Amino acid sequence: MKTLKIIKIGGNIINNENELYAFLEKFAALEGPKVLVHGGGKLATSLSQQMNVKVNIKEGRRITDAATLDIITMSYAGKINKQIVARLQAHQCNAIGFSGADGNTIVATKRPVKEIDYGFVGDIQNVHTETLDLLLNNHITPVFCAITHDAQGQLLNTNADTIASELAIAFSKSHQVSLYYCFEKPGVLTSIDDENSIIKNITTKSYKTLINQGVITDGMIPKLDNCFYAIQHNVHNVCIGVPAMVFDATIPHTLLHNS
Amino acid sequence: MKTLKIIKIGGNIINNENELYAFLEKFAALEGPKVLVHGGGKLATSLSQQMNVKVNIKEGRRITDAATLDIITMSYAGKINKQIVARLQAHQCNAIGFSGADGNTIVATKRPVKEIDYGFVGDIQNVHTETLDLLLNNHITPVFCAITHDAQGQLLNTNADTIASELAIAFSKSHQVSLYYCFEKPGVLTSIDDENSIIKNITTKSYKTLINQGVITDGMIPKLDNCFYAIQHNVHNVCIGVPAMVFDATIPHTLLHNS
Repeated sequence: MKTLKIIKIGGNIINNENELYAFLEKFAALEGPKVLVHGGGKLATSLSQQMNVKVNIKEGRRITDAATLDIITMSYAGKINKQIVARLQAHQCNAIGFSGADGNTIVATKRPVKEIDYGFVGDIQNVHTETLDLLLNNHITPVFCAITHDAQGQLLNTNADTIASELAIAFSKSHQVSLYYCFEKPGVLTSIDDENSIIKNITTKSYKTLINQGVITDGMIPKLDNCFYAIQHNVHNVCIGVPAMVFDATIPHTLLHNS
Repeated sequence: MKTLKIIKIGGNIINNENELYAFLEKFAALEGPKVLVHGGGKLATSLSQQMNVKVNIKEGRRITDAATLDIITMSYAGKINKQIVARLQAHQCNAIGFSGADGNTIVATKRPVKEIDYGFVGDIQNVHTETLDLLLNNHITPVFCAITHDAQGQLLNTNADTIASELAIAFSKSHQVSLYYCFEKPGVLTSIDDENSIIKNITTKSYKTLINQGVITDGMIPKLDNCFYAIQHNVHNVCIGVPAMVFDATIPHTLLHNS
């Protein structure tokens, strides 16, 4: 089975140009088929402020009215995505920027209104890998921003972690997929302030124990639920840690896997 | 030889959502391989005003400082390009949005500073059609915004008419290319206020005569020079007129060709 690396980078790297460019140089040199998924960082918020569009975040999610969707599309699919693609090209990595609308790769439905109306936010329904496969087979690297579409002409703001896991799940039908979540911490920590307290391995079984013991709490639970959802849907393994772990497996990180 | 249609739409369509959507529905249904190139319309200017970035246009060209390049990238590659792609997908046209950085398709150099410093404006050096060919052969439609890159990581603002003609020239090595420039007039007119005064055919020879006679003047000359440059570089023919001419050859338009 072919291998594939899917790497998600978040706001902490996007917001720091030097760190982003250093990461992209190494990413460009990474061998084998690979897909990059990027979050949005602070740009959408600062652009909203410049344009006097109210930023409304509820339970950690951005409420996406029409003006906010425009801002997200401009900053994620426009500035950030194209700057990443141009930078990868400078390092001889032949990249193409994607939203879920491009190539009809990720189809979502607008989230139903319940207690909260999230606006133009998408829940992923289908991932189509044919076009991406065609590109990967030709040594082209897709770079995804966190936008999907509903196949009826509507763009939708979608969580970048979920885009990465749903891509990983879809590709697992034809590839042995390793999924990397890069963030500011070196992994899942037993003590949030102690960067040496990394849990090196978490299995489906030990995850439940760690939650019951109160070791994993709060904000990490939805993130890890998303990771184990991927594991349960045949993604080979998931790594969580600082960006450097992608290029050097000896750098401490958390490895999530089945068993 | 395979045929290919390259269609450039300008600001007048982009600025009118109903007109744009009607055009895209018909474009989606157009048979055979096709490429869409779009201009930017008024969005970049209105966004500049909202963000208090000074708009500076000299001799019809936008002076592109770093802040303006960001605005152009956000509006052209972000909002406009992704909305077009999403709309085409809704009409079962499998489109992928491109800047010249994506797939390393269009490499430009930053325009040298002479009397005017245009800033981050690109003059096209190379067009690489391999990736686009791969997509076209798989019934995927590239949609280009008017942004290129210098292959060193720098995005560059580039004239959309030139992007269309340079793509047409590059594809003419392997395709019989018809290039369409859609604008608000039904073609090249002998009398600018009389829409019935269309010159139906202009050849390389008659073009010179029309200029010498003073029939073609002013703003049309650079536009037509660009068209005849394409003709001289093996583009099969160039059509100029209202968008509807693309779908119905009986609609009056100007046809430029060799002889």
